[in-house]
Amino acid sequence: MKCKRCKEQAVVGLPSHNAAFCEPCFLGFFRKQIETAIRRQKLFTHEDRILVALSGGKDSLSLMLELGELGYDVTGLHIDLGIGESSRKARAKVEAFCEKHGFALRVAEMEKEGLPMPLVKQHIKRPICSVCGKVKRHYFNRIAREGGFTVLATGHNLDDEVARLFANTLRWDVSYLSDQGPKLPAEEGFASKVKPLFRLSEYETAHYAFLKGIEIHSDPCPFSSGASFTSHKLLWSELEHRSPGQKFNFYESFLRQGRPAFAQLEKEQGAELHSCPDCGSPTSTDLCGVCRVRAMLAEKTGA
Amino acid sequence: MKCKRCKEQAVVGLPSHNAAFCEPCFLGFFRKQIETAIRRQKLFTHEDRILVALSGGKDSLSLMLELGELGYDVTGLHIDLGIGESSRKARAKVEAFCEKHGFALRVAEMEKEGLPMPLVKQHIKRPICSVCGKVKRHYFNRIAREGGFTVLATGHNLDDEVARLFANTLRWDVSYLSDQGPKLPAEEGFASKVKPLFRLSEYETAHYAFLKGIEIHSDPCPFSSGASFTSHKLLWSELEHRSPGQKFNFYESFLRQGRPAFAQLEKEQGAELHSCPDCGSPTSTDLCGVCRVRAMLAEKTGA
Repeated sequence: MKCKRCKEQAVVGLPSHNAAFCEPCFLGFFRKQIETAIRRQKLFTHEDRILVALSGGKDSLSLMLELGELGYDVTGLHIDLGIGESSRKARAKVEAFCEKHGFALRVAEMEKEGLPMPLVKQHIKRPICSVCGKVKRHYFNRIAREGGFTVLATGHNLDDEVARLFANTLRWDVSYLSDQGPKLPAEEGFASKVKPLFRLSEYETAHYAFLKGIEIHSDPCPFSSGASFTSHKLLWSELEHRSPGQKFNFYESFLRQGRPAFAQLEKEQGAELHSCPDCGSPTSTDLCGVCRVRAMLAEKTGA
Repeated sequence: MKCKRCKEQAVVGLPSHNAAFCEPCFLGFFRKQIETAIRRQKLFTHEDRILVALSGGKDSLSLMLELGELGYDVTGLHIDLGIGESSRKARAKVEAFCEKHGFALRVAEMEKEGLPMPLVKQHIKRPICSVCGKVKRHYFNRIAREGGFTVLATGHNLDDEVARLFANTLRWDVSYLSDQGPKLPAEEGFASKVKPLFRLSEYETAHYAFLKGIEIHSDPCPFSSGASFTSHKLLWSELEHRSPGQKFNFYESFLRQGRPAFAQLEKEQGAELHSCPDCGSPTSTDLCGVCRVRAMLAEKTGA
């Protein structure tokens, strides 16, 4: 296989782009996809202060490195979930990565916040993954707001986005379908949220991280049975194999034709938000979801 | 396995309904699904004159038999596509079925209309299935209108509908998503179109036809590589296996939450219709699609 651009020996084959690339041309392709995403979706500018959520996995670290190399004003944010050895290893990878590349990093420790995940798991009946996601989003948003960041960036890739869109579509969930996408504009109490890797597949970010020699945290979470939406991702990899490019087309035509229809409907039906009296985060209930979990834990553990 | 209703030995297992039935209770279940469809979606009443499209397959003949037994005013309509032995066999099955049950039947012969499919296939560049579908819908609608029928019923089952909905969703095709469903109300030049089997799976209609001893035409069309949307149907049978009931939930929540969003959008953007100068059918182009094909054939064959 020859590189589509320079005709050298290719190292990465990308059927969805009907292309194969050598290492330098693949890295160029990868960057171009991010630049196209930023430009076409107006994700942010060089004037923005960008907080990048870093789990320690291939996607978030790859995103951080690219945005840094592109000269954006980026600061890392790691949520230490307090899940024993697993969290210690993830945090160490993030700290070493930021140290190596000279990136500023903030760490929010759930232990100190009274929300270590093992304790939450012990006292809560809902699936832990949904509570953990809620807690992470809460601190992403709160630290962005309190730190004066204008943009919060996450490493969601095309496969993540397509699997989530598919799950929302199976239920035709209007409130999720109305605002899924690579950019959620800033609103009262919320920083703008962006996903600059939405044009790149998991396969592509994994290759990028490997070629750039990024040391990643790849152990699965001990509380989760594996990556989220695993079965939907398998199904979509079949669809993509059958018809290369279908994943991106599904997502892109949703943004163009699907989302506007749901956004219109949600505008007419959506819930109103106010500030949580405990932490100031926007919420549609009295106390916000995370402050409710924290209050429940404090009561149960007598803290 | 015991029958869910009467505890006799079951002959049909239906995981999506968390049930199994003996023969009489399955036939009762089958009828109830049709009655529920007619009532909840207001498909038609005993005052309507219903034209039922009969291909000779399990779905259309099962639908005709049930509607007849429920006392509705039904007339069969068969389109003889003129595809040699295959069409002769299909037509013979339909004629024998209507004869046996005393149903009125109309037959539209594409040979006489100047549109036999082998000739169409020979002179057209598009995939024959899409042209054949267009021709069938054209004559369904035209014969319904000219014969004073108020409703046109087709045998599309849940699997057909879900596969089609899925294909439309993959492309987020607003014009198709805005009106897919078990009922398209009558409009200027169009009879109301209904799909009373939309709550029943292919597996269920096949069992019904078998238990009722209906002689069906089951040979695949010689011009088609097989049933339509075959790969989507396979994918959905996997999803259904993983999570019984998911197929129906996908379709039903689309009707409740998805379609209204697209209908609103389409209302603002849709094309206007007028009457075809040749045949009077509603069309958004000058001559309607079928009259254009007929004119082209007449020119090429010097007819």
